[in-house]
Amino acid sequence: MPYSDLIEKLLEGNTRAAARLITLVENDIEAAEEIVNVIYKNTGKAYILGVTGAPGSGKSTFISNLTKFFVKQGKKIGIICVDPSSPLTGGALLGDRIRMKENFSLDNVFIRSMANRGQLGGLARATEDSIKILDAYGCDVVIVETVGVGQSEVDIFKSAHTVVVLLVPGLGDDIQAIKAGIMEITDIFVVNKMDLSGADKKVAEITQMLELDMNYKYKSNNTDENYAKIANWTPKIAKVNSKTSENFEEVIELIEEHKKFLEESGIIANYQVNRIKSEILQILKHKITKKVEGLISSNSDIDEYIRLVMDKSLDPYSMANLIIKLLGIE
Amino acid sequence: MPYSDLIEKLLEGNTRAAARLITLVENDIEAAEEIVNVIYKNTGKAYILGVTGAPGSGKSTFISNLTKFFVKQGKKIGIICVDPSSPLTGGALLGDRIRMKENFSLDNVFIRSMANRGQLGGLARATEDSIKILDAYGCDVVIVETVGVGQSEVDIFKSAHTVVVLLVPGLGDDIQAIKAGIMEITDIFVVNKMDLSGADKKVAEITQMLELDMNYKYKSNNTDENYAKIANWTPKIAKVNSKTSENFEEVIELIEEHKKFLEESGIIANYQVNRIKSEILQILKHKITKKVEGLISSNSDIDEYIRLVMDKSLDPYSMANLIIKLLGIE
Repeated sequence: MPYSDLIEKLLEGNTRAAARLITLVENDIEAAEEIVNVIYKNTGKAYILGVTGAPGSGKSTFISNLTKFFVKQGKKIGIICVDPSSPLTGGALLGDRIRMKENFSLDNVFIRSMANRGQLGGLARATEDSIKILDAYGCDVVIVETVGVGQSEVDIFKSAHTVVVLLVPGLGDDIQAIKAGIMEITDIFVVNKMDLSGADKKVAEITQMLELDMNYKYKSNNTDENYAKIANWTPKIAKVNSKTSENFEEVIELIEEHKKFLEESGIIANYQVNRIKSEILQILKHKITKKVEGLISSNSDIDEYIRLVMDKSLDPYSMANLIIKLLGIE
Repeated sequence: MPYSDLIEKLLEGNTRAAARLITLVENDIEAAEEIVNVIYKNTGKAYILGVTGAPGSGKSTFISNLTKFFVKQGKKIGIICVDPSSPLTGGALLGDRIRMKENFSLDNVFIRSMANRGQLGGLARATEDSIKILDAYGCDVVIVETVGVGQSEVDIFKSAHTVVVLLVPGLGDDIQAIKAGIMEITDIFVVNKMDLSGADKKVAEITQMLELDMNYKYKSNNTDENYAKIANWTPKIAKVNSKTSENFEEVIELIEEHKKFLEESGIIANYQVNRIKSEILQILKHKITKKVEGLISSNSDIDEYIRLVMDKSLDPYSMANLIIKLLGIE
């Protein structure tokens, strides 16, 4: 087993081993497979918290504050910052991370950035594997921060027990946006920068929206009939000031309350099933895509099909159907 | 054929039919398959231009200007604005579009926004199909605008003949970011807001970077030995002022020059092969993912595997391998 030394050190709580293993799972799915295969039985203890919000909503100061409160409680914290968007904006995010790192001693807080590395793909898969490494490393809480909520982030948040969405007063468009897809992933709304005018208005807007649309996260996800009759979790709302740390106790309490809800309702089991299904799907996508890419670049029938498509005697969808036959799965 | 009326109208240049068909391919891959199957032989005439840049680089005013110049040349233009990122930021982008639409009569310019609709996925596939619809509709140029350059955008830009990357003076981090992945997709760098101080410095930075790294787009993409000896295209640099329209003739000329390069070098054939391969891969990803999702939610073996993963007697990667066997592709 090529990584057994590193894994042994990881399980002893060695920070360098954690960092090295995350780099390995990020860059190489074969390494990820071998590593997860060994450490999987040592996972399942960490509480996973997802945090998202539009650029400018103050995600990094919010997370810094939350982390301070957790550290005071004696907890070990892992923070994974995921940026699925552009390398063109990657610089700014990295700067935030460096500032965040300055706030903490390395003993209790592990911070890591993960960016979309283009061709490598599989960011949700790499994030999931990194969470497992931090879990096995001994983190009590793993905070996963993402920029925005596209499909990649929705996949990433399937790993989170509790998802916090940050909003700020004044950005008028965001309530409209929430309706478009945030509702299904949010457990707690936090209005940040509560000192700005419009904070109460923002809370009122969220409240109003929650009253309009009662189809929340656990209702739609909950396909198992055992849980069909349990009460929904209505997303909670808090307002905070990340600069003065005002109201952070309340956020910590809401997270605790949500954790209790998951456990007492039995939804936690449902969460685990959904998380595993999502994870398997990520791994399969990666493996099957690699297989298809290999086929497309090597099979001689493919070249003939491409010629036909270039001549317009075949259209791309019909060609895709021919490849599915070649793969033997239709 | 359920869409034959719409398609007939599309081929006559009916705007409403184009809009309706784009909605269909965006929402429903079965409809997309039927539509592309019919219209594919009517495509291949449009020149496809990709435009990207960080938020704040002035993409929409740049595109408005470019469009005005094309319209003056008597061309019909399609503009597809793709936002693979968050619904949380979607509102702002939409506002830009509405302002853009006010600048043009609907006869010569067709503008459409496409956002990531979460679960539907397949944004690159939907964009590719929409380009085909605008091509068959009679557009001479289709401009595809994206926010940033993550994996989704790289996939989207495989359809573009020429890719323009916008930069602005003063954003120090972007050159660093360019090295990370933009170089491989860029044909023309445009420094926008040339009236700001630092525009010449930005041009100098790009020039310097181009001298450092000679591994450009066509070198890396060009696997076909027929084209292995042709000269590379060194990305061109222009600076413009989108507010005053200064220097846009130069950008138009550079695009023409790049088009000529593609044709005279024979790289255009290579571009078509790459575009088809990328498209097929998008379609296959979508179809195979659907199949795997179906399997995961219905197969009784899967439930047993999930129980084993929950018990930690099986890890997710091993479970993925078992499913690959079930699919019969290993």
